[in-house]
Amino acid sequence: MKNFININDVKDYKSLINETIDIKNNPYKYNHIGKNKVLGLIFFNPSLRTRLSTQKAALQLGMQTLNMNFINEGWQLEFEDQVIMSGNKAEHIKEAAKVISQYCDIIAIRAFALLNNKENDEKDLILNSFVKHATIPVLNMESSIAHPLQGLADALTIEENKNSIKPKIVLTWAPHPKALPHAVANSFINMCKCNDYKLVITNPKGYNLNNNITKGLEIIHDQKEAFKNADFIYTKNWSSYDSYGKVLINDNSWLINEDKMDLTNNAKFMHCLPVRRNVVVSDEVIDSNNSLVYQQANNRTFAAQNILKKLLSNER
Amino acid sequence: MKNFININDVKDYKSLINETIDIKNNPYKYNHIGKNKVLGLIFFNPSLRTRLSTQKAALQLGMQTLNMNFINEGWQLEFEDQVIMSGNKAEHIKEAAKVISQYCDIIAIRAFALLNNKENDEKDLILNSFVKHATIPVLNMESSIAHPLQGLADALTIEENKNSIKPKIVLTWAPHPKALPHAVANSFINMCKCNDYKLVITNPKGYNLNNNITKGLEIIHDQKEAFKNADFIYTKNWSSYDSYGKVLINDNSWLINEDKMDLTNNAKFMHCLPVRRNVVVSDEVIDSNNSLVYQQANNRTFAAQNILKKLLSNER
Amino acid sequence: MKNFININDVKDYKSLINETIDIKNNPYKYNHIGKNKVLGLIFFNPSLRTRLSTQKAALQLGMQTLNMNFINEGWQLEFEDQVIMSGNKAEHIKEAAKVISQYCDIIAIRAFALLNNKENDEKDLILNSFVKHATIPVLNMESSIAHPLQGLADALTIEENKNSIKPKIVLTWAPHPKALPHAVANSFINMCKCNDYKLVITNPKGYNLNNNITKGLEIIHDQKEAFKNADFIYTKNWSSYDSYGKVLINDNSWLINEDKMDLTNNAKFMHCLPVRRNVVVSDEVIDSNNSLVYQQANNRTFAAQNILKKLLSNER
Repeated sequence: MKNFININDVKDYKSLINETIDIKNNPYKYNHIGKNKVLGLIFFNPSLRTRLSTQKAALQLGMQTLNMNFINEGWQLEFEDQVIMSGNKAEHIKEAAKVISQYCDIIAIRAFALLNNKENDEKDLILNSFVKHATIPVLNMESSIAHPLQGLADALTIEENKNSIKPKIVLTWAPHPKALPHAVANSFINMCKCNDYKLVITNPKGYNLNNNITKGLEIIHDQKEAFKNADFIYTKNWSSYDSYGKVLINDNSWLINEDKMDLTNNAKFMHCLPVRRNVVVSDEVIDSNNSLVYQQANNRTFAAQNILKKLLSNER
Repeated sequence: MKNFININDVKDYKSLINETIDIKNNPYKYNHIGKNKVLGLIFFNPSLRTRLSTQKAALQLGMQTLNMNFINEGWQLEFEDQVIMSGNKAEHIKEAAKVISQYCDIIAIRAFALLNNKENDEKDLILNSFVKHATIPVLNMESSIAHPLQGLADALTIEENKNSIKPKIVLTWAPHPKALPHAVANSFINMCKCNDYKLVITNPKGYNLNNNITKGLEIIHDQKEAFKNADFIYTKNWSSYDSYGKVLINDNSWLINEDKMDLTNNAKFMHCLPVRRNVVVSDEVIDSNNSLVYQQANNRTFAAQNILKKLLSNER
Repeated sequence: MKNFININDVKDYKSLINETIDIKNNPYKYNHIGKNKVLGLIFFNPSLRTRLSTQKAALQLGMQTLNMNFINEGWQLEFEDQVIMSGNKAEHIKEAAKVISQYCDIIAIRAFALLNNKENDEKDLILNSFVKHATIPVLNMESSIAHPLQGLADALTIEENKNSIKPKIVLTWAPHPKALPHAVANSFINMCKCNDYKLVITNPKGYNLNNNITKGLEIIHDQKEAFKNADFIYTKNWSSYDSYGKVLINDNSWLINEDKMDLTNNAKFMHCLPVRRNVVVSDEVIDSNNSLVYQQANNRTFAAQNILKKLLSNER
């Protein structure tokens, strides 16, 4: 694989999951692969799980890591071509990507959606600019529109916990005081498609996700109806896609609580974290035995490790 | 030892010091212990000595380190239970501590006292929340009320420099323009108790430390009287404990200078650093041959290294 | 070599370049030299190339690295002697340098000119204070007045690309909206002198560099005249030295474009990066086959690696 930008970069997703399980069972099996190899981690946004799990993954492959919080440690970057750089941006992405490529073997990028302009966010400017100008593989650590490492960790978690061949998975919107991006939801949906899971999406009216991603999938605006017989409840807030980046609902009617979980088939609760307790999900649900949130976070390490391994060895 | 939160976590302090000296004499003796082990260093405050010496200690054990300045690299944390997280805190300590535990083998925390509420600081909320929710050993890199790695480095330094079995040690308050926490003084006192040193505390009226820590110890409000026959002068500012977090004195009458050092038994001068020259201590004293401040700082590495070794191997 | 502060610290510059080429051809040849050695990288300013290339160089020598962005991770430093530290500076450089020296084997410092006081900047206060008080070798990662690692990378690049024994090299000023330091230009000039290159400097009136550095060199105020027959065009903005730190020109008359490059002997284009496109240099020139900017950046790794090797082994 040349880059890992979204799930489509993977040839055979089922094999990917099986290989990731294999790495989880033996995390130091490939610890020679990264010898004298350097992973550069470039952050344009805060990060806890991604920061630590991706570094841990690299260490387990024997790689070295170089971290940069680009905003305050480097120079402000210009992403547009052919501009006269007389403002506050000191360096062009073209130079930044090319020089980082000379010091590293893989470059990992985190760059969230700004949520103020749909068209710009859809272009995934920062990530795609690195892909365009870097001369080494690029790893997506959450971009404007995709978070495929989270998707892979979620797939692994579902495979480890499913009780039937084709479980019913519900992706449910939940409330949040701030406008959040669509990347996690997008990648979760794409991952479910790759795995041929039975996926139902439930969200309030006005909160439908990008139709290019959801097309062919069932979207139900009645959350309780959607929860019936669910085996997995995957919870995530996102801001409105139609009224782009807007927060339209300020009540807790979509909070995930025990009453709603009781409607399911004893479903497992999933969330990518960080999560606002008692806004997105009640303490009772996230602290229950059915909660998989820590397992999801743990699986981030092995997801990253398998992808790094594939990028290093140019496997598909 | 399960965690290293304060000096009470150590079973036999004299053995601890001897083992630390042994490590100092042969710092790479245990460099196989940390193979494939990860130390996560989480900073909520600035750090120079602690940041570098703790990482150096880990490297000498063969450990990997992952650093996070939590304030600007991660998410704002909620520490209270059962709250509705609708404010500016994006993640609960419960999740943060548990997920970091999955990526690391030991988690080291620096979280200073805020000095605006005694009761809250005494609870040592951040550190104890990590202890409560982490599933791996927790190492205190200075909390609201204790700095036991500094205490151990100080003990090592005293042992290396004492000329009698039971030296007279004076812990003296000194002036400072800003309100500082009590953690270093608390841990120094507790360490002296463990070692059965003859400890005298001298501070202005209104600056007595927590009576639970000082009880049974001599507190003298006449600094010059206290200095007589001292073998070690351990200098540290702290804000008022009774008038919690207040700075009550703005003059230099308690500054440590040569005239005062002349009252001692040719005492060694100690301070944990950073120190404000000519406010806390005169240039002459800190630059004299009797100053042990650099040796104290150097001993931080070996103190951390022994504690990390014990945490990794679950020794007491 | 005890420290690497400027080019004068090198005994034989031609040998230095040849050794650096040797390292570039075999970057892991000396990967045993850094075993159990620690490089401390201390940044007072932003850094991309220097941050990553210097760490990469250390890794290729088998060294460990410890990073600090001193401004927000450590304490504000006092650099003046004998002051009463009652302001906002919590630690004296004397302590900081000495304690870092105990945790590291080499200390690398980046501290730009402030450009508000020529006399202060010329003293190179931060770097020289570390040199004065550190007890380990100090490596200059760009100071107020010198950037010798850049100079060495530039020398390497010229040697790799020159078509004649004594190429004509033009150091040309270029426009920039912000006031920039003189360090890169100073070190480039000193490097050219060491290598006995034919160097011509061209800059607008009012922009002559420090006469102590340029004396004996040709300075031409007609950029086009200077470009004639040039083999290398080394481009760099600097603020006025006479009207210290001032930006005197706000037009693009000194921009490097194809028309000007056409006046040369098919010259190579060089710049240390970061560069403002279409302010300093046109897209066409920097993107042309004659542009060496990425090669210069790549050579930073090997320049740093050779210097680190010399500092570790105390070679000259």
